[in-house]
Amino acid sequence: MDKRPVITLLTDYGMRDSYVGSIKGVICSINPNANIIDITHDIKGQDIIEAAFVLYTAYKYFPVRTIHVVIVDPTVGSNRRILLVVSDEYYFIAPDNGVLSLIYETGTVSTVYEVNAEHYYLSEVSPTFHGRDIIAPVAAWLSKGIESDKFGDPITDYFKLTLPKPRLMPPKALRGVAFHIDRFGNIISNISSEDIKKAKEEYKSEKFKIIIGKFEINSLKNTYCEGNKGELIALIGSSGFLEVASYQGDASFIANACRGTEITLIFQ
Amino acid sequence: MDKRPVITLLTDYGMRDSYVGSIKGVICSINPNANIIDITHDIKGQDIIEAAFVLYTAYKYFPVRTIHVVIVDPTVGSNRRILLVVSDEYYFIAPDNGVLSLIYETGTVSTVYEVNAEHYYLSEVSPTFHGRDIIAPVAAWLSKGIESDKFGDPITDYFKLTLPKPRLMPPKALRGVAFHIDRFGNIISNISSEDIKKAKEEYKSEKFKIIIGKFEINSLKNTYCEGNKGELIALIGSSGFLEVASYQGDASFIANACRGTEITLIFQ
Amino acid sequence: MDKRPVITLLTDYGMRDSYVGSIKGVICSINPNANIIDITHDIKGQDIIEAAFVLYTAYKYFPVRTIHVVIVDPTVGSNRRILLVVSDEYYFIAPDNGVLSLIYETGTVSTVYEVNAEHYYLSEVSPTFHGRDIIAPVAAWLSKGIESDKFGDPITDYFKLTLPKPRLMPPKALRGVAFHIDRFGNIISNISSEDIKKAKEEYKSEKFKIIIGKFEINSLKNTYCEGNKGELIALIGSSGFLEVASYQGDASFIANACRGTEITLIFQ
Repeated sequence: MDKRPVITLLTDYGMRDSYVGSIKGVICSINPNANIIDITHDIKGQDIIEAAFVLYTAYKYFPVRTIHVVIVDPTVGSNRRILLVVSDEYYFIAPDNGVLSLIYETGTVSTVYEVNAEHYYLSEVSPTFHGRDIIAPVAAWLSKGIESDKFGDPITDYFKLTLPKPRLMPPKALRGVAFHIDRFGNIISNISSEDIKKAKEEYKSEKFKIIIGKFEINSLKNTYCEGNKGELIALIGSSGFLEVASYQGDASFIANACRGTEITLIFQ
Repeated sequence: MDKRPVITLLTDYGMRDSYVGSIKGVICSINPNANIIDITHDIKGQDIIEAAFVLYTAYKYFPVRTIHVVIVDPTVGSNRRILLVVSDEYYFIAPDNGVLSLIYETGTVSTVYEVNAEHYYLSEVSPTFHGRDIIAPVAAWLSKGIESDKFGDPITDYFKLTLPKPRLMPPKALRGVAFHIDRFGNIISNISSEDIKKAKEEYKSEKFKIIIGKFEINSLKNTYCEGNKGELIALIGSSGFLEVASYQGDASFIANACRGTEITLIFQ
Repeated sequence: MDKRPVITLLTDYGMRDSYVGSIKGVICSINPNANIIDITHDIKGQDIIEAAFVLYTAYKYFPVRTIHVVIVDPTVGSNRRILLVVSDEYYFIAPDNGVLSLIYETGTVSTVYEVNAEHYYLSEVSPTFHGRDIIAPVAAWLSKGIESDKFGDPITDYFKLTLPKPRLMPPKALRGVAFHIDRFGNIISNISSEDIKKAKEEYKSEKFKIIIGKFEINSLKNTYCEGNKGELIALIGSSGFLEVASYQGDASFIANACRGTEITLIFQ
């Protein structure tokens, strides 16, 4: 059997309405052979940053040539563009609103197309549902083997979000922020293990404590159950970022943290 | 490769329990080749009208010969019948409780069968889970190519809900109701663009304002982001119905609207 | 077409994050032909008993040789083992924390392997996400036809939960507990129809009333709509267990019941 081309969906449509179902219907009408996989539809409504993060932590676990469809689209129907982004191993289709910013930062993107080949759209396009009427059919036709450059023209002025980056704050600190609170209440920061390694070299120190709000954490654990119940711990999470957690508890509740909450490493 | 027959599922079972999983297990035990696609399982418990609306907005985006399975079944195990409905392009399997009423109104239904061929059921039928024990296996056997008339006998006295229709209220009004509140809080009415066109002709006027509760909206926009934050706007939504929305806000909250809330167009 | 091997997923990961998507990506990277079916991802965080129950009510509706993946894993990254369990008809992959206890009780398990063949893992294993890095690839390789005994060594000292069992309480009672509250508020007990049959024989009586909290139910109904609104009824539910329900209402709310609430049958 030929491999079935994989199309993933990552949206803020929720699952209560028919939005996601309609998109899947459009895709399998055009390419019955597509293997449609949900990443999530529970992105907070119109939360482009959350979608960018969730995509970033999932996309690379999919087979080469997977088509990642990302629809968080507060300005649907305006003159914002729709993009087809080609990277070394994947395709991404999304509105040009910055939701792919973390993909751009990987340095693997080769070409960004503005999608404008209307003959690949559904025959009627609703101004409020480009996901169904433009993005879904473009993804489906791409999965059938239509070449990327048939869907539009290459552009270079696509929109990039300026996402907060961890900063070295001499003499002894590395400061980042909470980037994502997961369903267990784990606080995932924007500080990567690589960032910590560089700070160690810069400060010539292996040892640091972690400050979040009024809490201080003195070392990194390997996994959740090394902490005591009710206690905040820190570890390098499964996406490679520093994470503040609590064994069988909700760290975001304990620390009163949300996206943007500062997390600071103080080196000895 | 042969096309894989598509079976969609639209239920109020939620995803917390094993109900949906069991149904999928039954289907792929009988037809491993079936392509099972969720429309939603988050219909409000026993809300037949919501299910009817969500089905109506999704069904036609699926490939011809798709089998749409709709299970919102408050009177499961009673003498209510189970139906197999054949339309020009689709099959529908559902309890005979009106959940297919909007499909009947399309005028595309050719035959309605009462399902009674027990040899297609699971060998044990629980009185409280016909979805798993009757509907799922019938859908699976149908997807394997068993003819529709093998599952039961044609009937004509199937149950139709009397759903509210928009009414012309001379001299100058068209009155409908909110039909569905979507996950973003958009208020989707039962007033179609066709209804508005007819009212325009009737009243020989192109211009109207829209009244919902104490709010007045003076024109139609094309898409959400043409409104200001906090403001109610109106537009023709992606299902062809008049919709009251609010850019990056929750219109149902702002307007204090729920299903049944009156929405009136007053023509000049 | 060959049958596509079925892999089911039952987790507490929720659908807000990328956890489930990443797992599906790993599986279809290794075996693009796998048919991945969600049972649920909405198990209450770290609730092993709920997962055990939901698995038990769903697993047997899937095709023979289905691989059931169960990931509720509060002690991920500790020295708890990962198991591959082979039963007469199915495979189960799960942490060794008792989540498969109800499967062990079926008496169909032939061999339990401790998974330790690291060459089947992803090349990097995060201590906090064995679901993605160990369990998903093992499931995928198993679905490609690798023999079970290639993944590890047989063990017999796997962990079994001591789940509460209904007890005969002479002279006239059978006492069980609420095991699961479903999304409709139905209270599903651990008392099977078989348990009731045995109690009838023991007590030489066909007639009993059911006590839950301050409520008394005098007979079994067949299905939900035989009750009046607001009234508690009892019936044998679709999984073969005694269930307390309320027609179009939430029995768990009416009875103020949760898992562990006692349910007692008093025979005449």
